[in-house]
Amino acid sequence: MNQSRTPAPGGIMAAEMAEQPAVLSRLLEEGAAPIRAVAERIAARRPRFVLLTARGTSDNAALYAKYLIEVQLGKPAGLTSMSTTTAYGARPDLTDVLVITVSQSGGSPDLVASTRAAREARAVTLAVTNNPASPLAEVSEFHIDVLAGPEKALPATKTYTAELLALYLFVQGLRGGRVAASAARLPELAAQVLGRQGEVRSLAERYRFAQRLVITSRGYGYPTAREAALKLMETTYIPATAFSGADLLHGPLAMVDNVSPVIAIVPDGKGGEALQPVLDRLRGRGADLMVVGQRDQVAAASAGFALPAGVPEELQPILEILPLQQLAHEITIARGQDPDAPRALAKVTQTH
Amino acid sequence: MNQSRTPAPGGIMAAEMAEQPAVLSRLLEEGAAPIRAVAERIAARRPRFVLLTARGTSDNAALYAKYLIEVQLGKPAGLTSMSTTTAYGARPDLTDVLVITVSQSGGSPDLVASTRAAREARAVTLAVTNNPASPLAEVSEFHIDVLAGPEKALPATKTYTAELLALYLFVQGLRGGRVAASAARLPELAAQVLGRQGEVRSLAERYRFAQRLVITSRGYGYPTAREAALKLMETTYIPATAFSGADLLHGPLAMVDNVSPVIAIVPDGKGGEALQPVLDRLRGRGADLMVVGQRDQVAAASAGFALPAGVPEELQPILEILPLQQLAHEITIARGQDPDAPRALAKVTQTH
Repeated sequence: MNQSRTPAPGGIMAAEMAEQPAVLSRLLEEGAAPIRAVAERIAARRPRFVLLTARGTSDNAALYAKYLIEVQLGKPAGLTSMSTTTAYGARPDLTDVLVITVSQSGGSPDLVASTRAAREARAVTLAVTNNPASPLAEVSEFHIDVLAGPEKALPATKTYTAELLALYLFVQGLRGGRVAASAARLPELAAQVLGRQGEVRSLAERYRFAQRLVITSRGYGYPTAREAALKLMETTYIPATAFSGADLLHGPLAMVDNVSPVIAIVPDGKGGEALQPVLDRLRGRGADLMVVGQRDQVAAASAGFALPAGVPEELQPILEILPLQQLAHEITIARGQDPDAPRALAKVTQTH
Repeated sequence: MNQSRTPAPGGIMAAEMAEQPAVLSRLLEEGAAPIRAVAERIAARRPRFVLLTARGTSDNAALYAKYLIEVQLGKPAGLTSMSTTTAYGARPDLTDVLVITVSQSGGSPDLVASTRAAREARAVTLAVTNNPASPLAEVSEFHIDVLAGPEKALPATKTYTAELLALYLFVQGLRGGRVAASAARLPELAAQVLGRQGEVRSLAERYRFAQRLVITSRGYGYPTAREAALKLMETTYIPATAFSGADLLHGPLAMVDNVSPVIAIVPDGKGGEALQPVLDRLRGRGADLMVVGQRDQVAAASAGFALPAGVPEELQPILEILPLQQLAHEITIARGQDPDAPRALAKVTQTH
């Protein structure tokens, strides 16, 4: 980490990415018990349906939670369209509904307003934020602190992985299930992955002059595809579009050819298996395919980054995003821009 | 319409776009009563939550229905992530849940499988398709026929607007409300809009050499933004990315500058008002902004296409998409490609 007065471009983002193993450790050691307590109190309220509200990076964490809730908890879940409440004044009856709002800052006025409206509409409200003193935490009945420490770079990194792990721990608590033993290995595995920066640097060379990127995955890997696209767009300014593998076959595939590189996140598990026909189609079209994930799939691709084996599929997203955060960082520096301060962005977005 | 054996490129898509006023008329005249009957039977089952399942163009129609259901019906609604059922075998308890599956062909195996699973999980199931003899219609408890007639071009056009109107009529039936009198004017207004092809042709000139497009809206206009992006990507192969206005401010705005043209769909109503701060930010960045929608906003933009005034906001999406379909068609022809048959696509996508 650069400690001088004028840090190197991207120095803040790099430092925050490097903190991720420590943040995951803190969450496992100090966060797990309070999260479990919140989950048990919410489970006692027997919610039947879950709605998730978030924007930007946190929206991708919310999407991850949606998969967990549907698959592990067997409850229907949806992502809300906030404008139905904030612009159109919709007041659906939310009895038996758990509304989870995810926000790093807990400060966006529209999230606060929609959470207040949900609580008035009889929802059980839970805020997942990095700031227990935030307006969002205050307006919500329950609060989970993701304990990531202050985040200063505009592109969110450590708060994303912290949100993922906090939501994972919450869902395990809600179902009264056990946290996978391998969760304890996440900090060490994250450190190993982050240590392979040389590999990422040579991948970044491939995309330095790319005009566009398509990113795809399925299942638990799909939130990673979306977050990678967002990270790449907000730092490198390359248009990076994420598609679930199935949706890619419904139209956007026409856009993919040998000048449109594809990044596929291939989970080791059912999501990766479901993605297989899409990978075959992409290979059949001669697409330049980089794979992040399962080792054999990486070996079969044009390029890639293999992730450690033996991690349950539902925990893999916490590792998958790490080389993609670094990739966004490296490409941005190679293009002569500053990843810490993308043009036009503010850290707390004042949308209403 | 070209009747020769080898039609001009885009001739099939053009003919299907031109059929839209007739399809809307047919739906209002022949479809309204059966749709209302289905809605009344479903209302009697008192669903508390609504889940919508679809892919591609139909997914954008489903998103439109989600806004209608939340705003007009006051029921929480979500879009499903199909892979939780088809890949992970999730079996959420769907008592009191209405599951609406929207599909032009009604033939995708994953939609059929997920609808069957939803029915087994006690959901009320409704298929909205263009084919009453399809496997999806068969596996669903209820069915609505969008009566669009066979669609042969790969880019869906008339089935999209037919799905929108069918879903609008269904939601009005579900709430026991009246269909807005202006719905009867839609066929005529659609014909007027489609008749202004010269305007679209000159807009197409702007984007012929574009490397990327950003498309934004809010509220009822957001499904239009997503459908326009999909249509442009699958025909022109230009990467076109749709963002809700609020999400655009959370990161992707960094990507927008004077070489990244922006198309904004500005509804005449609350969605347009909520989009105003985003339009101001875009203007502040000097973005090249084309507006489809409200007349004053079009006048204030770099270019645009004004839609007829006096249409209720929830019906505007049926008109908004028309010039954007034509735009995709015109740009594709200008680039020497064939809109009828984008490379790599099949009409019924065999995703599992």
